[in-house]
Amino acid sequence: MVVDYNRFLSSTGRQLAESAIRRMGTVVAGATDLVSFAPGYPAPELFPWDELREISAVLLTRADPDALQYGPTRGYAPLLETIAGLSAERGIIAAPDQLMITSGSQQGIDLIARVMVSPGDVVLVELPTFTGGIAAFRNAQAHLVGVPQDAQGIDLDALEAAWQRERSAGRTIKLLYVIPNFQNPTGALLALSRRRQLMEWAGRRDVLIVEDDPYGSLYFEDAATAAETRPLRADDPEERVVYLSTFSKTLAPGFRVGWLVAAPALVQRFETAKQSIDLTSGALDQLVVHEAVKRGVVQALAPKLRALYARKRDVMEQAIRAHIGGRLTWSPPKGGFFLWATLPTGSSDHALLERALAHGLVFVVGSAFYVDGTGHEKIRLSFSAPSIDRIEEGVKRLAKALNAST
Amino acid sequence: MVVDYNRFLSSTGRQLAESAIRRMGTVVAGATDLVSFAPGYPAPELFPWDELREISAVLLTRADPDALQYGPTRGYAPLLETIAGLSAERGIIAAPDQLMITSGSQQGIDLIARVMVSPGDVVLVELPTFTGGIAAFRNAQAHLVGVPQDAQGIDLDALEAAWQRERSAGRTIKLLYVIPNFQNPTGALLALSRRRQLMEWAGRRDVLIVEDDPYGSLYFEDAATAAETRPLRADDPEERVVYLSTFSKTLAPGFRVGWLVAAPALVQRFETAKQSIDLTSGALDQLVVHEAVKRGVVQALAPKLRALYARKRDVMEQAIRAHIGGRLTWSPPKGGFFLWATLPTGSSDHALLERALAHGLVFVVGSAFYVDGTGHEKIRLSFSAPSIDRIEEGVKRLAKALNAST
Repeated sequence: MVVDYNRFLSSTGRQLAESAIRRMGTVVAGATDLVSFAPGYPAPELFPWDELREISAVLLTRADPDALQYGPTRGYAPLLETIAGLSAERGIIAAPDQLMITSGSQQGIDLIARVMVSPGDVVLVELPTFTGGIAAFRNAQAHLVGVPQDAQGIDLDALEAAWQRERSAGRTIKLLYVIPNFQNPTGALLALSRRRQLMEWAGRRDVLIVEDDPYGSLYFEDAATAAETRPLRADDPEERVVYLSTFSKTLAPGFRVGWLVAAPALVQRFETAKQSIDLTSGALDQLVVHEAVKRGVVQALAPKLRALYARKRDVMEQAIRAHIGGRLTWSPPKGGFFLWATLPTGSSDHALLERALAHGLVFVVGSAFYVDGTGHEKIRLSFSAPSIDRIEEGVKRLAKALNAST
Repeated sequence: MVVDYNRFLSSTGRQLAESAIRRMGTVVAGATDLVSFAPGYPAPELFPWDELREISAVLLTRADPDALQYGPTRGYAPLLETIAGLSAERGIIAAPDQLMITSGSQQGIDLIARVMVSPGDVVLVELPTFTGGIAAFRNAQAHLVGVPQDAQGIDLDALEAAWQRERSAGRTIKLLYVIPNFQNPTGALLALSRRRQLMEWAGRRDVLIVEDDPYGSLYFEDAATAAETRPLRADDPEERVVYLSTFSKTLAPGFRVGWLVAAPALVQRFETAKQSIDLTSGALDQLVVHEAVKRGVVQALAPKLRALYARKRDVMEQAIRAHIGGRLTWSPPKGGFFLWATLPTGSSDHALLERALAHGLVFVVGSAFYVDGTGHEKIRLSFSAPSIDRIEEGVKRLAKALNAST
């Protein structure tokens, strides 16, 4: 008998949303001499190999069973303390019952989607937003509603209008998902005044906020300050914010170590959900990360990362000016990994990607970040991972692809 | 305003099932001088510290970005090849499109639950069965139906009867979840003849089987042979079996590296689901495990693990005979981590656990493994993690707790 696997799929299984960025990763894996501006991978040249080798050697010599055994679902207790310390530096006071380790920030988003979103519930998102967020909420069968943003971040009038509209339609509005610092894909930094207004709005409308903050410490020192990246969660006495962050961008993503900060009542639910999802995050990963913070490796790395990414941004912007000129426009990113570009009138992101691939370049189409089917005049160019030379080469290829379209 | 978090929970979030074993872990973490027969943790004394230190040093010296960067969702390609090789030794032929890495076997169960189980779908499980399986299927709102087993494993007549009953009730029967080798919690080994009959039954009734096999290579050489642990998936031309295994018991659980083997159409869905669940499993973890197999570390460890666990089983059985006598009865486990004991008539698992805790001993109550509310005359004693001395000490405490009850 030939098995009809479709019969065995759940409603979720039938309509799984693929992450556009992950799919692009598969394309890249098969190609040679491809320049990739696609995934938001951190720069491998700053991975602290020597320090991590030293730390692993110590941990695996000490023969502390914690390094290789199953650990608590909530996370390795000393790492939780360490993260409480890092959080305090960013203005977030987190007690042990407000903290939890996640297997990367993506697991944080997925936990929230599972524990909080019933099919049909509204999740408000920035227009555009991170594809991994879109996929996780879609897979929980959320009704995703996009809210436009400008150079200062999410548009609060549009947010209120969206809330009114969905409320009138009789829908349950659960969450607002935002990336205030160096947004993915736009690179926008949410203005401090808007942060205050956003928190007031959430209180007034009784909405919870998911604050995804992977890039907060990666501001460019010529364009932004640490004070401007102050998390929403730092000014959240009502505990309306579920805060997510990760070591993927500040140490290395190969360790799947992220964390969340939330009200104890929610953290408890996330922990119970994680028990049956993956039991616990990697033990050695957590011990290595803990030791890397304790020794100041993560802290020492941050200014180097800021300088490197600022330089790569410069190289990409200069190369675009030199090879493409005014046909691409963008708001200069003040931090993070991405240059979010607007194509010449009449261009389409998918058509351009097809031509770019023929020239050996890959990026992510703008429309992948929009929950409303728009965004075809945009593309996301990641400057974080490629070397200076490859950034220049990639922009030359992009110029050729753009020329072929005119 | 005080936030009412209950309002923000999904239907899943409201009725999350806690893993009894994980909860027990929390109890243990807070106590001193407790003997723990509770969680199925592997023996820390055989973690191959020196080999793992050497491997980590090499991987972190080579500065291969794969070790620290994001990797493919499907898994690190060389590790997938390595696993294909290990699978072949167990009779399972797995092509690359039939294989996927999971963040431990628990993630495999959860992926299956999400991709395949809609609310109300029937999942048939052994009575008793692994609490992590129960929790994952419950959280997908499965209708769990228990099928009795005897010393030879699942009772096929009872299985057919359960199928008929659920079918008559108009329910959709999706899956049968089984642990054929050294079942958790019973330690039972499914007889070879029953394996054949079970596969015939699944074909006849068009049911898919989830085969969870963490303990297959941990048979006790005085009681079972490798041939008797032959996976269902090895004789599955119709691809009805989704096979799950892990390195947690054969190397170390601190690396969250498990895998699944299934029909390509299903693996593709699992991969898409994993994209938005945790993007990818740990990179360094996967490279370390790959290297540990390549160097023969995992293979060399297996006979040592078999010998050690057989010895610990001996010690536990002898201690019970010496200190408790005939008041506890059990089928001698032929492999794995657990001794599944029946209490004297009239005893209750919860009452005994309470007295045991007062004497400094913890185990898992039998009823936690039953989906039908029964099992209160059973307890699960894990002999895998404690040292020989602690096993003896723990059994003495168990004797005191039992005496206090008479």
